[in-house]
Amino acid sequence: MAHDPVSAGDGAEDALAASRRESSRTEGFPTVGVLGGGQLGRMLALAGLRLGLRVRFFRDDDSGPTEGVAESVEGTWDDADALRRFVSGCDVVTLENEWQDLRTLVQVLPPGVALWPSRQTMRWVGDKIAQKQRAEALGLPVGPYRACDSLAALEQAAAALGLPVVIKRPRQSYDGYGNATAHDAAELRAAYAKLAEGDGRVLVEAFVPFVRELAVMVARRPGGQDVAYPVATTIQREHRCAAVEVPARILPAVAEQATALARRAAAAYGCVGVVGVELFELPDGQLLLNEIAPRPHNTGHYTIEGCVTSQFENHLRAVLDWPLGDPSLVRPAAVMVNVLGHREGPASAATLPAVLALPGVAVHVYGKRRVRPGRKMGHVTVLDDSVEAARARAEAAAAQLEL
Amino acid sequence: MAHDPVSAGDGAEDALAASRRESSRTEGFPTVGVLGGGQLGRMLALAGLRLGLRVRFFRDDDSGPTEGVAESVEGTWDDADALRRFVSGCDVVTLENEWQDLRTLVQVLPPGVALWPSRQTMRWVGDKIAQKQRAEALGLPVGPYRACDSLAALEQAAAALGLPVVIKRPRQSYDGYGNATAHDAAELRAAYAKLAEGDGRVLVEAFVPFVRELAVMVARRPGGQDVAYPVATTIQREHRCAAVEVPARILPAVAEQATALARRAAAAYGCVGVVGVELFELPDGQLLLNEIAPRPHNTGHYTIEGCVTSQFENHLRAVLDWPLGDPSLVRPAAVMVNVLGHREGPASAATLPAVLALPGVAVHVYGKRRVRPGRKMGHVTVLDDSVEAARARAEAAAAQLEL
Repeated sequence: MAHDPVSAGDGAEDALAASRRESSRTEGFPTVGVLGGGQLGRMLALAGLRLGLRVRFFRDDDSGPTEGVAESVEGTWDDADALRRFVSGCDVVTLENEWQDLRTLVQVLPPGVALWPSRQTMRWVGDKIAQKQRAEALGLPVGPYRACDSLAALEQAAAALGLPVVIKRPRQSYDGYGNATAHDAAELRAAYAKLAEGDGRVLVEAFVPFVRELAVMVARRPGGQDVAYPVATTIQREHRCAAVEVPARILPAVAEQATALARRAAAAYGCVGVVGVELFELPDGQLLLNEIAPRPHNTGHYTIEGCVTSQFENHLRAVLDWPLGDPSLVRPAAVMVNVLGHREGPASAATLPAVLALPGVAVHVYGKRRVRPGRKMGHVTVLDDSVEAARARAEAAAAQLEL
Repeated sequence: MAHDPVSAGDGAEDALAASRRESSRTEGFPTVGVLGGGQLGRMLALAGLRLGLRVRFFRDDDSGPTEGVAESVEGTWDDADALRRFVSGCDVVTLENEWQDLRTLVQVLPPGVALWPSRQTMRWVGDKIAQKQRAEALGLPVGPYRACDSLAALEQAAAALGLPVVIKRPRQSYDGYGNATAHDAAELRAAYAKLAEGDGRVLVEAFVPFVRELAVMVARRPGGQDVAYPVATTIQREHRCAAVEVPARILPAVAEQATALARRAAAAYGCVGVVGVELFELPDGQLLLNEIAPRPHNTGHYTIEGCVTSQFENHLRAVLDWPLGDPSLVRPAAVMVNVLGHREGPASAATLPAVLALPGVAVHVYGKRRVRPGRKMGHVTVLDDSVEAARARAEAAAAQLEL
């Protein structure tokens, strides 16, 4: 663990001040409130239960993966009464999705109950333009980008950056749902029509000719103490994470730089909890920061079986300001492959037994009642002596699994 | 995996016939009903949730480790209405405690819903005298014992076996609560007064001069296909499991015999699901069957982190008649140490953060609201390159943890 006190300007000072609020601890086991009720929440709850923590969800629908897994309060994000019931008795509140509108929540949050990541972190991270600007202001390496507030501005920016470009919706943008690559003027216009915020804003980035996408999970406590998981390679299909290989097959010097950059990024945004840091590796081995997500992350699911302490357990430890666990791999290699939906209808266990017959495949099913094409329904993880062997086995298992 | 079709007489035939009942499978994910709501149920639920299974408990109190972990029906074991609500919608019913009175349950169990372990297995296993008699009848090696139905018979048996002897209550006997060692006539009388069933029966066993207590977890499907976990050494204090070391530090030939004997025992009782098989190793390397428990077992908790597939996942796979998972260790050695209560009062998380600061200690807290001296409150597991190293680290952690 290393203390990495980045000098991060006023905002980070705010975040650090906020971090010093003590959560109200009792003799008993703390209750962790989780905003959102998807698969990340489900896996957080499973990790928390093992430690005897109480986990409580706030959800805006009742059909999610967290149904029946722990207690929950249901309501909309502007329902002050429901949010008050949710926070009552919570020792700390965290999130599994950074795209919710938390203005009402912070109004009802009792003094002494910490929210991690902090509001300041979310202001920086929850808008992709603000996220880029903060990285640039702190000297973190990012690729060329422009913030645009009209189609005309986007067209100018694309001309300056050179086509193709990547256009991103600044908010509510995840899993490829808010991204597009434009190769010409027509695609540029189509992307703008689809992705611009209500206020007309989009983020546009130069297409970075990376050789590899890397990801590093960092767990960070309020005081800045952190641990970094091994550097992973992420394999994307259609702007979405398809598979994760650990360790990344990169030079040791690149892995060291990636780890250092991920820690700097987590500190730059004042993150507390687990942070997924996505990086591009350029042909010369230089690294650029792509994006960060201030929560457990798809690229860290391999840590459940693959590491001594999972990202979910370390997220809980971090937001409780408890000592962080060992992020080391338990075997030389781990590979995770996502299991996406291929049809529309109720979820099915029909193929599950056959996949369980494959040796050493850890299957995770998220408990979504309905499947849709492209929907993340689960994942598989395989540990082995080499990334190649683990990848082959995990892909074979995921290909057979139709949930 | 090996198919081990022990020729086991009429009773085993009944069990096999029962085993051929198909559980009603739907396209969706099966619901596994669990009788009991203690820590074994809690860990079963956590394993089931990962696979997308629905888990439902039947409990006779509401303060247990399974509160809020999955859905539950509360009632007494003779409440037919509550039991009907519980089994409604279950695809299979299993148990985490073999000491309940299931006469009402089996009356309300719908056709097509399997109960595993079967009633026949429970008749053999749920009474320690019947268990011994069946082992002896099938030629499994057991130490000298007598079934007694009066104090006079016990005194005669003790004289024949030679003091000291071990006296056991035939039913409801677990965790040392139903056992006593008697060295003289006074202790014999005291043990009889404490342990005799309502009908006057006790089991008395010659004191076996074992060098080691071993345990093997076996997971077994309805058709007899099975997998065996590595042979473990169990360290007992006051007739209770204190620690488990894996692999046992024994000769390879002894480990082979122990594995073979455990599989024969699981088959002899027609077990389906996970079975904990306890063995004595004698000074000459010979093995005796001590007891079996037809469910996940304290001596198998190390499998959660220690093995590719945990005993809890394999129990669920077995009762669903799904392919069994790999029982291999992921690291060379695993040690589990129980965390017992040392006081009376509400459970406390006060020492938990300090224990989490110890590297590589997996902490499991069972969620019991109150602590009592000797109550199992949780356990810790450590994986390492040697049993010695893992044991030292696990004992140090457990000694610091007061839940």
